Amino acid sequence: MKKITILGSTGSIGTSAIDVIRAHRDKFEIVAMSAHGNHKLLMEQIEEFSPKYVSIGTEDGKKAIEEKYPELTVYLGEDGLKKLGALDEAEIVLTAVSGNVGIEATVEAVKKGKRIALANKETLVCAGKLINQMVKEYGAEIIPVDSEHSALFQSLESGKKSEVRKLIITASGGPFRGRTVEDLKKVKLEDALKHPNWAMGRKITIDSSTLVNKGLEVIEAHYLFGIDYDDIDVVVHPQSIVHSLVEFTDKSVIAQLGITDMKVPIQYAFSYPERIENNLTESLDLVKLSQLDFEAPDMEVFKGLKFAFEAGKAGMSMPLIYNTANEVAVDLFLNKKIEYLEIYKIIEDAMREHTPVELISIEQIKKIDKELRESIYMKY
Amino acid sequence: MKKITILGSTGSIGTSAIDVIRAHRDKFEIVAMSAHGNHKLLMEQIEEFSPKYVSIGTEDGKKAIEEKYPELTVYLGEDGLKKLGALDEAEIVLTAVSGNVGIEATVEAVKKGKRIALANKETLVCAGKLINQMVKEYGAEIIPVDSEHSALFQSLESGKKSEVRKLIITASGGPFRGRTVEDLKKVKLEDALKHPNWAMGRKITIDSSTLVNKGLEVIEAHYLFGIDYDDIDVVVHPQSIVHSLVEFTDKSVIAQLGITDMKVPIQYAFSYPERIENNLTESLDLVKLSQLDFEAPDMEVFKGLKFAFEAGKAGMSMPLIYNTANEVAVDLFLNKKIEYLEIYKIIEDAMREHTPVELISIEQIKKIDKELRESIYMKY
Repeated sequence: MKKITILGSTGSIGTSAIDVIRAHRDKFEIVAMSAHGNHKLLMEQIEEFSPKYVSIGTEDGKKAIEEKYPELTVYLGEDGLKKLGALDEAEIVLTAVSGNVGIEATVEAVKKGKRIALANKETLVCAGKLINQMVKEYGAEIIPVDSEHSALFQSLESGKKSEVRKLIITASGGPFRGRTVEDLKKVKLEDALKHPNWAMGRKITIDSSTLVNKGLEVIEAHYLFGIDYDDIDVVVHPQSIVHSLVEFTDKSVIAQLGITDMKVPIQYAFSYPERIENNLTESLDLVKLSQLDFEAPDMEVFKGLKFAFEAGKAGMSMPLIYNTANEVAVDLFLNKKIEYLEIYKIIEDAMREHTPVELISIEQIKKIDKELRESIYMKY
Repeated sequence: MKKITILGSTGSIGTSAIDVIRAHRDKFEIVAMSAHGNHKLLMEQIEEFSPKYVSIGTEDGKKAIEEKYPELTVYLGEDGLKKLGALDEAEIVLTAVSGNVGIEATVEAVKKGKRIALANKETLVCAGKLINQMVKEYGAEIIPVDSEHSALFQSLESGKKSEVRKLIITASGGPFRGRTVEDLKKVKLEDALKHPNWAMGRKITIDSSTLVNKGLEVIEAHYLFGIDYDDIDVVVHPQSIVHSLVEFTDKSVIAQLGITDMKVPIQYAFSYPERIENNLTESLDLVKLSQLDFEAPDMEVFKGLKFAFEAGKAGMSMPLIYNTANEVAVDLFLNKKIEYLEIYKIIEDAMREHTPVELISIEQIKKIDKELRESIYMKY
């Protein structure tokens, strides 16, 4: 029985994780779970899985949960997330909270030498070097949950890291694939919120449309697998069936494929090194699909990807700047404060104005993040 | 330094193996090599690689080699092949001779507990159960060289055998993909000898067009990986880029891809469990390829595949009958003694007239094979 903490149990990844655990109650047990605002769904999950600890983002939510479950330990907010990350009882911590708040909880879990089923992109993008050092120091283990990184992780099982020639990350291309800069000028919020293949949260859906999401994945892959940016390619693959590929030094390419269902990589991160039954996901049917397409990403139109490579190659604090600037920009766009293409401008400006510094602590990362947020919000 | 014997060094697989070894003379050394009729090319290979032993199919060839290389041990014919298979000096024996003659040499190598880089389909198709028993008994190891089986082998590295849900073998579909039975009635030898993707020998090119080649691969996969026929699928993939796939029980599919170059699986069979540099093969370029197609094979038109599943499921001696009948039929077709569709008729008749028996020795296999050959040749 593997004991699991789910940070972010009411989001899109969190609820898929719940589905996986429900299907394997003989193998997995939930020790703790957290939600940000949706305490109603969290309470349904508490009813079903009886965790020992929960954390919730709002005072109201905390009160409601404590009233109904007086025996339960209920924590609050970011501090609560960190407490859940550090729990001794859990072997696996799924970090499915988005944004920078996920980093600190992940650090707590790393310090306890746990397996991190990592679904929080910011952790490695903003603090990759620090986290990798800590993972080594505390004997922790990171298994990626993102479909692309899980695909790379699974494909890498067929060789050694020293035998890798190239990582090939696939991208759906998002809803604006094939568009020009002129087209993008006219994009409305409603257009950007329609993703062709994956049903996800609003922020990540916008990131998919700008290819910033793919850019974050490139940086994450760099830290996860220790591969140079020059050896990471992005290929647009509209069907999102080939989730990513690894080319080895012998020119053999190993890929992971499947229908678009996050339950597969989530379950793998839980069950690894074993694979277990999955009756929730349909089999891949290549004949029914009939055709898989591939094309080069247009980095001059979708600058989100170009900036990511630049930020990654600059290293140090630059990926953090890239990510924070994007978070703020997307927030502004979601609140209709800026035009679509201003997302790129905000990222570009932030990167141009920043001189990279070595990141030595989480506190420093929080400080840089906070200062940049404030300065961008001041401007818009 | 790994010491290698190449059985069939002048054929299509053999010369590719020579290319691989030439590129890695610091890692691989040729101990022995054999050819059937082409003693001129064999002598060039002797000049370049200085093996200790060779075997040649003709008396003339033997004489020519002995005159030029008086120090060299030169064997003759099938007996010579067996002697090379059994050499103590070699760690790896590449069995790249086609037809039943490859079986006995493979058996010799298995009995010496060697690694067999297996490119001879008949070995497992005709004697799969026996060979598997011997591999276990003598601690030998079979690494497949066929591109599809190598793809399955490499993909299986990403999981355990008990976690396999399905093997998906890809097929180019051959030159007659999409044709009807009526179309096939008119097929001439010249048409059947044109394969869209792979440059191979004449016999295997015909087998590709009838899908018997794919049928043999299905049976081989069954014995290589211990997977039920009901869990082996064939998918037509005209570009031959995805060389095969494994679906695991968690619905994750792992595939091996690459351009069509036999040097990749040959080198892998030599270097396994390592992967080493390959500068002879171009990288896979998905963007340049742009599109990969998949469709179901038409087993009512291409009965070569249907009969293979029937032979495999019947088991015992039936796959041997399937293979031998096909060998004779293709020989008759290559010699313009029969029409194209009579290949299927000969296989079907042979299978219908045969009552499967348990195969207990190589001698018995040779006997059944010989009797069937004689009876078919008598009829045509």
